[in-house]
Amino acid sequence: MSTDRYQKGMDKLKELTIPDENSPTGHMEVGESFKDIAPDLTRLVVEFAFGDVYARPGLDNKQKVLTTISALVAQGTPQIGMHVVTGLNVGLTPDEIAGCLVHLIPYVGFPRVLTAMKVAQEVFAEQGVAITAKPESGESSAG
Amino acid sequence: MSTDRYQKGMDKLKELTIPDENSPTGHMEVGESFKDIAPDLTRLVVEFAFGDVYARPGLDNKQKVLTTISALVAQGTPQIGMHVVTGLNVGLTPDEIAGCLVHLIPYVGFPRVLTAMKVAQEVFAEQGVAITAKPESGESSAG
Amino acid sequence: MSTDRYQKGMDKLKELTIPDENSPTGHMEVGESFKDIAPDLTRLVVEFAFGDVYARPGLDNKQKVLTTISALVAQGTPQIGMHVVTGLNVGLTPDEIAGCLVHLIPYVGFPRVLTAMKVAQEVFAEQGVAITAKPESGESSAG
Amino acid sequence: MSTDRYQKGMDKLKELTIPDENSPTGHMEVGESFKDIAPDLTRLVVEFAFGDVYARPGLDNKQKVLTTISALVAQGTPQIGMHVVTGLNVGLTPDEIAGCLVHLIPYVGFPRVLTAMKVAQEVFAEQGVAITAKPESGESSAG
Amino acid sequence: MSTDRYQKGMDKLKELTIPDENSPTGHMEVGESFKDIAPDLTRLVVEFAFGDVYARPGLDNKQKVLTTISALVAQGTPQIGMHVVTGLNVGLTPDEIAGCLVHLIPYVGFPRVLTAMKVAQEVFAEQGVAITAKPESGESSAG
Amino acid sequence: MSTDRYQKGMDKLKELTIPDENSPTGHMEVGESFKDIAPDLTRLVVEFAFGDVYARPGLDNKQKVLTTISALVAQGTPQIGMHVVTGLNVGLTPDEIAGCLVHLIPYVGFPRVLTAMKVAQEVFAEQGVAITAKPESGESSAG
Repeated sequence: MSTDRYQKGMDKLKELTIPDENSPTGHMEVGESFKDIAPDLTRLVVEFAFGDVYARPGLDNKQKVLTTISALVAQGTPQIGMHVVTGLNVGLTPDEIAGCLVHLIPYVGFPRVLTAMKVAQEVFAEQGVAITAKPESGESSAG
Repeated sequence: MSTDRYQKGMDKLKELTIPDENSPTGHMEVGESFKDIAPDLTRLVVEFAFGDVYARPGLDNKQKVLTTISALVAQGTPQIGMHVVTGLNVGLTPDEIAGCLVHLIPYVGFPRVLTAMKVAQEVFAEQGVAITAKPESGESSAG
Repeated sequence: MSTDRYQKGMDKLKELTIPDENSPTGHMEVGESFKDIAPDLTRLVVEFAFGDVYARPGLDNKQKVLTTISALVAQGTPQIGMHVVTGLNVGLTPDEIAGCLVHLIPYVGFPRVLTAMKVAQEVFAEQGVAITAKPESGESSAG
Repeated sequence: MSTDRYQKGMDKLKELTIPDENSPTGHMEVGESFKDIAPDLTRLVVEFAFGDVYARPGLDNKQKVLTTISALVAQGTPQIGMHVVTGLNVGLTPDEIAGCLVHLIPYVGFPRVLTAMKVAQEVFAEQGVAITAKPESGESSAG
Repeated sequence: MSTDRYQKGMDKLKELTIPDENSPTGHMEVGESFKDIAPDLTRLVVEFAFGDVYARPGLDNKQKVLTTISALVAQGTPQIGMHVVTGLNVGLTPDEIAGCLVHLIPYVGFPRVLTAMKVAQEVFAEQGVAITAKPESGESSAG
Repeated sequence: MSTDRYQKGMDKLKELTIPDENSPTGHMEVGESFKDIAPDLTRLVVEFAFGDVYARPGLDNKQKVLTTISALVAQGTPQIGMHVVTGLNVGLTPDEIAGCLVHLIPYVGFPRVLTAMKVAQEVFAEQGVAITAKPESGESSAG
């Protein structure tokens, strides 16, 4: 029988989301909001994107979220909010998320990273979290 | 004085590369090979890309390599070979690297991932490494 | 003389648009709205984009609209609304338009398709049309 | 059990390919060639890309190939050879394929289209096909 | 010591901006607005983007702004407003800026250029400037 | 009659190319090499790309070449060789061309610029030209 993949996807989604009013279950909702134009979209998202791919062994959840965020920033696609929330849910710290964005600068340029930073900033505010480490801000480049 | 950033960059490069004839010190060579057209390129690469960004706290080296690979695959830029080698050098397993590429499929599509997979495959062969886990290959989706 | 290309373009535009208050003659308006910054833009759009390219034999109008929509979705450019309207005008069904978007998922990834789906959804609502076929929604992948 | 999706995908692949030595069964081979790095890739390609998406009702095969080609050209991904062959296999004429590429010029610019044209040209030569219609070549833009 | 690069960057920023209430000192503000998520961002922007790159000999300021605008339009990134203002500040005329955008059409397609044109149009209005030359608007292509 | 645009395009092409065996008349050849697949391509290139756009007032030739190169690098399209030759033909110095590429780093990232630098390097070698200015190469960032 094959509730196998669908169940795998649903289980993965539960791992990734913390159900409370501050955490949108964005991933699931995405499929549902398009029922009228593509009724099979929810199934494709849950079964393929989550059951086959997100639930796949190899990377841990934190590494998977970093991979997702990096790909979206590189594409200039600013819808990373949902994935920043997911990242916090699976244990990435705000420092790690901000670190991922800064790390992308030499590969995709400043504009795409700055677009993403704005989104991350808003999510951190909504979620009531903040970075802890303080990379030297005012220090000049030498001694 | 400011050999500070330059040294920071060089130290980071040493962390990332294992000098032997199979491991190209690709990152450093990149700057050097363009001396005749942009003499300052090596400095920009070593000081900014490595001294300021790659050496920045926040993410560990393995997370940084995954971030880099993801961004390049998303851009359709197949020059990930050097970064796959770096990934192996800093402790990513072939399974983690392959897992990163498969994870990108729902975000960037199959064609870009397949281009990258070919490169990773060649690097694994050159480096004499292979994946260990075996996600079910022939199993159908149920039963 | 050469009203030839301009006329060809205008004739094509008439084919593509159904003038009523629900159908924006978006294509023409695009040029006109930039008269103050590039007075020749309307001419370039009408003569080249429509007279030379859109009026060219080879593909029929429905195939041309699908080509256009696919290119824009792949680029992450969400301004497909005007082209969804054009598609309906030339005889594409909502099922064909939705089918085009779902077909793009394996090639460009889910995020870009979902951005486009939102736009198509809004246009269908404005135009009072809906898909008819119902790909199995709740069915799991086997049995 | 679920050989359902896998079978659907295989059936679709048979529709799309004409097995003879000139027609690469490229789509299937793609998965197989990466067995050593991602054993599940063939299954993902056959079941999702072909079983779920390519076999989906909505667009006919010719429209699907045009959609695919357009997306790849827009991405600057020149691996359209396999899809040009598929297009010919399902009944697109060389004129329709060339028409699709020219139609993309106003949306993605000349460079990406020219890269694709070179590939299409090579496939037409290998397949021994040619366009039939002759859009006016030497005619200037006015009478 | 190295206030060298930081000072170089600040000096360049002064060259590029005309401080009055209509000219956002956008470049500097960008770093500052992300202090809470990446305290080192301002330093990276001022020292690398402006001190190392923007202050580099080779191109003059007007050529540099055209290069920047072209890259952003090609990426589909519409945040060119700040750079259009900078362009006017360093002596590019509205005609040159509009000319740059039209010149991009054959390379990136109409949609990306039109998105950028809207932004440039708004900036020209805010800044109270306008193009002077009038490329023939209504003239057909011959005669 | 309208040999007007065609002639305008041909005149522009003559301005941009220096006919000798080292300077490919690449722009014209591009259209001609696709006669068998799109007989109208030469006309579209000469009349639209060169007659309407490249011949348009607003930017001078040097600014136009920089705009073109920037757009192609940003797109990750490495076919800039022809445009580097054109740039040298219209009076851009190797320093200006190299300066354009370095200037792009903060906007598109290092990988795309390095791909382009390799091409420019090859063209400079073929054309027997070299940069003259020497941005400080070995100097560290301070003192």
